[in-house]
Order: sequence, then C-alpha cells, then structure tokens
Amino acid sequence: MTTQGQVITCKAAVAWEPNKPLAIENVQVAPPQAGEVRIQILYTALCHTDAYTWSGKDPEGLFPCILGHEAAGIVESVGEGVTEVQPGDHVIPCYQAECGECKFCKSGKTNLCGKVRAATGVGVMINDRKSRFSINGKPIYHFMGTSTYSQYTVVHDVSVAKIDPKAPLDKVCLLGCGVPTGLGAVWNTAKVEPGSNVAVFGLGTVGLAVAEGAKAAGASRIIGIDIDKKKFDIAKNFGVTEFVNPNDHDKPIQQVIVDLTDGGVDYSFECIGNVSVMRAALECCHKGWGTSVIVGVAASGQEICTRPFQLVTGRVWKGTAFGGFKSRSQVPWLVEKYMKKEIKVDEYITHNLSLSEINKAFDLMHEGDCLRCVLTMLE
Amino acid sequence: MTTQGQVITCKAAVAWEPNKPLAIENVQVAPPQAGEVRIQILYTALCHTDAYTWSGKDPEGLFPCILGHEAAGIVESVGEGVTEVQPGDHVIPCYQAECGECKFCKSGKTNLCGKVRAATGVGVMINDRKSRFSINGKPIYHFMGTSTYSQYTVVHDVSVAKIDPKAPLDKVCLLGCGVPTGLGAVWNTAKVEPGSNVAVFGLGTVGLAVAEGAKAAGASRIIGIDIDKKKFDIAKNFGVTEFVNPNDHDKPIQQVIVDLTDGGVDYSFECIGNVSVMRAALECCHKGWGTSVIVGVAASGQEICTRPFQLVTGRVWKGTAFGGFKSRSQVPWLVEKYMKKEIKVDEYITHNLSLSEINKAFDLMHEGDCLRCVLTMLE
Ligand SMILES: NC(=O)c1ccc[n+]([C@@H]2O[C@H](COP(=O)([O-])OP(=O)(O)OC[C@H]3O[C@@H](n4cnc5c(N)ncnc54)[C@H](O)[C@@H]3O)[C@@H](O)[C@H]2O)c1
Ligand SMILES: NC(=O)c1ccc[n+]([C@@H]2O[C@H](COP(=O)([O-])OP(=O)(O)OC[C@H]3O[C@@H](n4cnc5c(N)ncnc54)[C@H](O)[C@@H]3O)[C@@H](O)[C@H]2O)c1
Ligand SMILES: [Zn+2]
Ligand SMILES: [Zn+2]
Ligand SMILES: [Zn+2]
Ligand SMILES: [Zn+2]
Repeated sequence: MTTQGQVITCKAAVAWEPNKPLAIENVQVAPPQAGEVRIQILYTALCHTDAYTWSGKDPEGLFPCILGHEAAGIVESVGEGVTEVQPGDHVIPCYQAECGECKFCKSGKTNLCGKVRAATGVGVMINDRKSRFSINGKPIYHFMGTSTYSQYTVVHDVSVAKIDPKAPLDKVCLLGCGVPTGLGAVWNTAKVEPGSNVAVFGLGTVGLAVAEGAKAAGASRIIGIDIDKKKFDIAKNFGVTEFVNPNDHDKPIQQVIVDLTDGGVDYSFECIGNVSVMRAALECCHKGWGTSVIVGVAASGQEICTRPFQLVTGRVWKGTAFGGFKSRSQVPWLVEKYMKKEIKVDEYITHNLSLSEINKAFDLMHEGDCLRCVLTMLE
Repeated sequence: MTTQGQVITCKAAVAWEPNKPLAIENVQVAPPQAGEVRIQILYTALCHTDAYTWSGKDPEGLFPCILGHEAAGIVESVGEGVTEVQPGDHVIPCYQAECGECKFCKSGKTNLCGKVRAATGVGVMINDRKSRFSINGKPIYHFMGTSTYSQYTVVHDVSVAKIDPKAPLDKVCLLGCGVPTGLGAVWNTAKVEPGSNVAVFGLGTVGLAVAEGAKAAGASRIIGIDIDKKKFDIAKNFGVTEFVNPNDHDKPIQQVIVDLTDGGVDYSFECIGNVSVMRAALECCHKGWGTSVIVGVAASGQEICTRPFQLVTGRVWKGTAFGGFKSRSQVPWLVEKYMKKEIKVDEYITHNLSLSEINKAFDLMHEGDCLRCVLTMLE
C-alpha cells in the first residue's frame, strides 16, 4: 500500500500555545507539492531554538505549530520537479536551505540562502503559502522549514541533504544543527589556525563541538568557561585543556581570561545566548587580532554593547548560523567524517526517549546533565 | 654652530589646561637619549584627536602638553644606538610605532606595536620615563609619542619613518595620520574587492580618503553620507558616486541605505566618531557578508550596541587604527605613491597658516569648509 499522493495521518507533538506542554496529536500531513519532499522522520533531537520559540519569547513564533529541526529520516515521496532525492533516500532536513541559485548562494561568501526564507519564516510552504499540516482541517504551522517533531513532515527540496544510507540515523540526526554549528564556527567562521589560544563560553553541545573543532584545527590552549562545573569532566573528552568557572572569580571573566593568556585569546566563542557573556567574549580577545564569534542566540530585543575602542584596536566581532556550513553540500560530508570517525557524534547523546516522552525530554534539556536527547519517532 | 647634544629652545604651542587657547611658548627641548631622535618639525596639520584631547574629554589626556601628530620634518640629531635615521634625513613622525620585534609586530596580524606604548600613553619617553620638553625647568608632557606642535620634538626611533627627500614636506605631512587611515581602512582592514558597494559615513579627510581608497580598489558604488551638504561637491573628486543626507529622510539612515542597495552594502566605514552612526553603519551592511569598519574615534565612555542577530546573520564588525598600515615600513611607500600621483594629498589641504595662528586653525577645523589645515613651523 503506497502512501504517495495521499494524506498521511501520523503522530506529532503539537505546540498549541506558548509555554503549554506539547500534545501528541494525530496530524494530517498533505502530500508534497511541486519542489517539496515528504520525509518520514525516524529520529529527532531537541535544541534550544525549539525551546525558545515554544517559550513564547520569540516574537516571530507562530502557534499552533510543530517544532523540531535536528533530525534524520527517509524520503517517503517527492513532489513534481524534485530531482535530487527520491523515495527511500536517507536524509537530514536542513533548517538552513541551499538553493545554489539565489544572490546569497551565488555570492560564495555565506551559507545563508534566500530562496524559501519568506515562507519558512512565517510557518508555511512557498508554493501556495499554506501549511501541509492540519488537524481536522485546522492548519498547524511549520517551524524553521523542518518541523521534525512529527512522524512525517514536508520540507522544500532545497532543505534536504541526502546522506549515506549506511549512516545510523539515530546518531547522525545531530548533524542537523548543534554539532555542525560548533565545528563550523571554528572551521568556517573563525578559521582558527594551529597554535591558537581559544576560549569557549558555555560547554553544552555547541560549545563542546567548538572545542572539538578547535582541537582538530590544532589550537594549543582551549579554555572552557561554564558556570556549571559538572560540564568540566565531560569537556575534557572534547579537547578542552583548561577550565574557568566565572563564579570562582571576583574579577570580570574577560579580565580573568586576559590575565591567563598574556593579553587575551586569539579566538573566542559565545555558545550560551547571553549578551553580557557576548561582550566578555569579545573583550577577552587579544588586542590587534582577537576574533570573537557569537554562536548563542540571545532573547529577542536584547542587545550587545562594547566600547568602540575594542574594535579600533583590532578585535573583530562576528557571528555564525549553522557554523557557516552550506547545508545540502556539506551535511553529507559531515556524515562521511563521522563514518570515518573523524568527528564525534555519539558522545553528545546523553539521553534517548520516545516521541511520547517529549515533554520530559525538554525538562532534561534544562538540567545540566543532558547534552542531546534523541527521540525515537516510531511508537 | 651645531645644536647636537645641546638643549634647543624653540617655539611650541602648549596646551596648559583643557579647553584653554594654546599658548605659543619658548620651550626647552632636551637632546635625544639612547634610541631617540630629535626632529625639526617643518609642517604639521591638525587632526581631531588633538582637538579631542585638548577639549579635556579624553580621560587619559595629560596637561600641560604639546599636542600634534600629523607632521613632517628633518632629523636634527639622534641618540645613542640609533641606526636607521641620521641628521638631515627627511622624516614623518609616527604615532603608531613599529619596532619589528614585539609580540604585535611579529604576529603578522596587526600594525599595533607594543614597544613604547607604556611610555607614549603617559606622555613620557621610555628610557627614563621623563619628558624631553620643559619650560624653565617645568616638564611639559609629550602627546601620542609625536608632539608635533613644536619646532623641535623628540620621538622614539621606532616612531620615525624615513622618506624620500624629494617629497614636499608641506604636503606629505598629511601622511602621518588622516589620509593613510582612510586608505588603509579600505585596503588593509576591509580589503574591498572590485565591484563592491561601499557606504562612507562622514566626508571629512578620513571619509574622503576611504572613498579614494574604495575607488582605487574598484568599488562600483561609493555612497557618501554626511549631514553637511557642502561636502558633496568636493567628495565627487574623491570617488563618491552618490550622496545621502540623513536629514533628508524620515527613515533611519541604515534603512535608507539598505533600500538603495537591494539589501545593504558590502562594506561600510564610520568616519565620524558617533556611536549611533557606528550602529547604522553596521546595520546597513548586507546580510551574509557585509563588513563594517569603525574608523571614527568616539568620546570616552560611549558604547556601540546592536542586536546580536546582526552578527549571527553574517555581518562583521571591525575597526582600524592608522588604517592597519605598518608605519615605518609603509609610510615611505605611501610617500612614493603620492610622488607617482597614485594617491591624492594636496587635495585634502584647504588651508595654510603658521604655528602662531594655531588657535585660528582649530576654529577652522570645526567649520565645514576645512579638510586639513597645514601649519608652517618656521616663523
Ligand atoms: N548560531 C546558530 O546557528 C546556533 C545553532 C544551534 C544552537 N545555537 C545556540 O547556541 C547556544 C548553545 O546551545 P547548546 O545546545 O550548547 O546549549 P546548552 O544550554 O546545552 O549549553 C549552554 C551552556 O552554557 C552554560 N552557561 C549558562 N550561562 C552561563 C554563563 N553566564 N557563563 C558561562 N556559562 C554559562 C550552561 O551551564 C551550559 O553548559 C544556544 O543559545 C542555542 O540557541 C545557535
Ligand atoms: N582610527 C584611526 O586611526 C583614526 C585616525 C584619524 C582620525 N580618526 C577619526 O576619524 C574621524 C574623522 O576624522 P576627520 O578628520 O575626517 O573628521 P571631520 O570632522 O573632518 O569629518 C567628519 C564628517 O562627518 C560629518 N558628520 C558629523 N556628524 C554626522 C552624522 N551624524 N551623520 C553623517 N555625517 C556626519 C561632518 O559633517 C564631517 O563632514 C574622527 O573621529 C577622528 O578622530 C581615526
Ligand atoms: Zn538548533
Ligand atoms: Zn539560495
Ligand atoms: Zn589623527
Ligand atoms: Zn613592535
């Protein structure tokens, strides 16, 4: 029995309202239209961006919606004109699209793509500006162009990376967001060189991936900074060479790092989403060349500040989205690196639950022991 | 009659107190000690950093002092161990030193030099941490390691660029600060590529030099932004292709520029010293790659702010000091470029006065008609 061309009814975690527990519902998923791909999601992880929108603090959050953007699955069917994937392909949905044709993709200077953003930013598909999700006729918004907290989802073809079918989907689902973000912040955005001193603020999945990327890039000192000392033991496995807990110091943390490093680090990374830490991360950089990369996502309306003298004397302030990786071309390459054991993935997975336990998974995320929790989508 | 080894008494403009007119005084200039050079200053221009410190707003300003840092002259005598210049050499004093040996100079990543900063920052020479200027035994502080508002000054040997003796000193004195700052912001800090769109905020000497540098780098659109419309006519000669007066618009200036350029410019430069304009300059950059360079110097204590999302979506915030030029190695090269008519200098000089008219020259600087005023030091 083929599902192609049919509406599929399946389980999904629906966020009906900000800050209310997600509800497991039977959702109708319409067939993919031209340029769209319907994916059976097998595994999804949770990321802070989901929690942020769910919290209601994201002014662009739309409800009801299906959250989720770090996942892996198998193509169930494709719409008209889709040539790059076919049913049965193993894929990772990419919240950062890559069309190869827009001004952004053609610039050679960024991984951001403009092709479908106008639609994904407002929870719909670009073809008819409508959602493919509904419950008894009531539309449910998409989220980040991915909506992976559903057993089936529909995404734009420019948002699907086809990967090696031998890769374990319960692991490589992490390559949809957090791990590439950290690695790419180091390799693509900062371009850390061998021998560099690096400071990583926040040792969650993203910060640990920064540490791992910095180690691979040959950094000599990798200073991990976290207020949760439980993070220090695990961080050693990811390349962190020294630890600083801001709560152990009276001095501002930027001064502590400057003193530790004879003038400051060559590169720093903010992996928390806290604007005061973003400032500290910039100001702990070495005069003349230190570069700070903002990776964390701050709450809406919050601003970063510093004295302009910090920049006039040679520091550089940057940011990164998905680590600067071009999603469709580079996610498969990251999967290969994982298969060759050149990058870690399994080590970030601290918990496994099922879709029906998603609210518990969010609770875990807010505790210090959890890096990534992976949900099985099959009941 | 040689002056070598002797105290020289000459005229200098002394800032006795913040914000009080400069006084032309007879000043005693001690002979250069080891590693020092005494220079007869023949021409000096005025720059805003002099005015800023003079105003008393610079918390690091020390009084009484002799201001001035954009000048040219002839070496009168040298102290022990000085090998790179000798009496009679034509030179430009450099407020940004270059020793070639310190951590900064050896990094290959910055033009900032750490060798004498601890002394020049507090108005003295590094050898004995004393001043070489005095009036009847009372010491007068140095300023920026240059103090060019004096007929004779003493500087560290790492702060002297030896130039082609055929170069007209009454012109190339400008290569001591403003013009290289603008050119270098484009060539060294931003590295503008052919075909780029550029926005220049503030069309004084520094902003015009940015425009000139951008034109030489092959930029296709150079948008000049100034609130003084008198600047627009002259700016055409420096490569500006379009003008925007923020006062002609109700929308924020960043929005005006974004609308004009289908999403923002590739590079922007703040050449005013206004922190709100610094923010606008960043935010008018194109998502994904736009780079903004802070050139203007803001008043002490003021801060720049923006939403971190501006950086996370690919904009880069930088700054520049002396345009990233290595002073002793590159000022002579800039002089050569001027001699070959590859860069403008004469065109920035709108007024010529003598040292005794220095207060009038500062008044002119605060009027829109003056770019650079050059003072003759000989009475
Ligand atoms: N730019 C992007 O493309 C992108 C992609 C994914 C995630 N993110 C963002 O990256 C950030 C980190 O994600 P994560 O999954 O690693 O989060 P996480 O919550 O697992 O890790 C954050 C860590 O920061 C620590 N921390 C909190 N406050 C601190 C402080 N003041 N000083 C030092 N340490 C502090 C916490 O103890 C924790 O270990 C989030 O803001 C997330 O939204 C950005
Ligand atoms: N970073 C460095 O190494 C360095 C070196 C030299 C000078 N500077 C700084 O560069 C800045 C410019 O120097 P300059 O000599 O060209 O100054 P200037 O005063 O001659 O030029 C500034 C221009 O900005 C315009 N302006 C003022 N407010 C404006 C606004 N809100 N919007 C648009 N235009 C505005 C003025 O009309 C003027 O034309 C100063 O802050 C100076 O201290 C920095
Ligand atoms: Zn994420
Ligand atoms: Zn694209
Ligand atoms: Zn100057
Ligand atoms: Zn040096």
